[in-house]
Amino acid sequence: MGTPMTAKASVFIATSLDGFIARPNGDLDWLDQANTTVTEGEDCGYTAFMDTVDILIMGRNTYEKVLTFGPWPYEKPVIVLSRNPIDIPTELTTVTHSSKTPQALHTRLSAEGAKRLYIDGGITIQRFLASGLITDLTITLIPVILGEGIPLFSPQQQDISLTHTETISYPFGFVQLKYKTL
Amino acid sequence: MGTPMTAKASVFIATSLDGFIARPNGDLDWLDQANTTVTEGEDCGYTAFMDTVDILIMGRNTYEKVLTFGPWPYEKPVIVLSRNPIDIPTELTTVTHSSKTPQALHTRLSAEGAKRLYIDGGITIQRFLASGLITDLTITLIPVILGEGIPLFSPQQQDISLTHTETISYPFGFVQLKYKTL
Repeated sequence: MGTPMTAKASVFIATSLDGFIARPNGDLDWLDQANTTVTEGEDCGYTAFMDTVDILIMGRNTYEKVLTFGPWPYEKPVIVLSRNPIDIPTELTTVTHSSKTPQALHTRLSAEGAKRLYIDGGITIQRFLASGLITDLTITLIPVILGEGIPLFSPQQQDISLTHTETISYPFGFVQLKYKTL
Repeated sequence: MGTPMTAKASVFIATSLDGFIARPNGDLDWLDQANTTVTEGEDCGYTAFMDTVDILIMGRNTYEKVLTFGPWPYEKPVIVLSRNPIDIPTELTTVTHSSKTPQALHTRLSAEGAKRLYIDGGITIQRFLASGLITDLTITLIPVILGEGIPLFSPQQQDISLTHTETISYPFGFVQLKYKTL
């Protein structure tokens, strides 16, 4: 028996040019607006990425935002990370809650055989980054400066060096950057 | 006689992936470090850009930082924008001071025939952006997350929509994004 492989922990997110993932109140109107310019049928790699994901991990804010979108959009298991318990509708059988640390959760899921985790939501991404767990980031830059909002990145103690792996420029003005952590 | 053309006001700057142009104390060690990986002779479009520039406009902080670099690096005229007068060594005959607003300075320089202004330094860029004067931005993303520092962008009142014009991926991991304002 070998040791279990360590799961990748991946970020796949859109931001404004000034690095915001939402307006201060969580609104995504600017992103919805930008998405109206996208070539029909183009999902900017989302399906291909999602096909490689075993489990989504998101914070309470992102979870509650997703609930407002209408029908639950994810088929894959979702773990909502928050210190306090949350109400999960019984019909959302693929959603569970965890109050573990990112490290403990990552270790458990790796031991259970997960190959890739999709880490979503500003605070949750920041916690995984601060724990040194993020392996790769795909950031799609939307051509707008918002001026204020919920940031993708937050103050942290030390530099994180990255390796640029790919950039895709879409004809509708989105630029998708891909990096691996070293 | 026609009305004078309006000068372009351009940003050409490097930032960390999290949008900082320098560490909190102004240090550029991370950029110097990254520049050691650059292919010899590659200037990421700087000379070609500078050839199109008539006048540089920068704030006092940037001016004082440039002074520490050693010999004055610019042949073109430089205007240091600050509310209070500054000491300019008499040998720097190409450097002058202005306490005008970005709008007033831009109007004056346009009337004098300037075709393109190079706007440099965080606060000065932010003032020109807030005044709606910036026409185009070239941002070179360095593959590092710093966590804190002097930001390129700052809180502002309204969205600024951009048109993406070009992205260049360099083999040493820099990604150069080019946008025009609408």
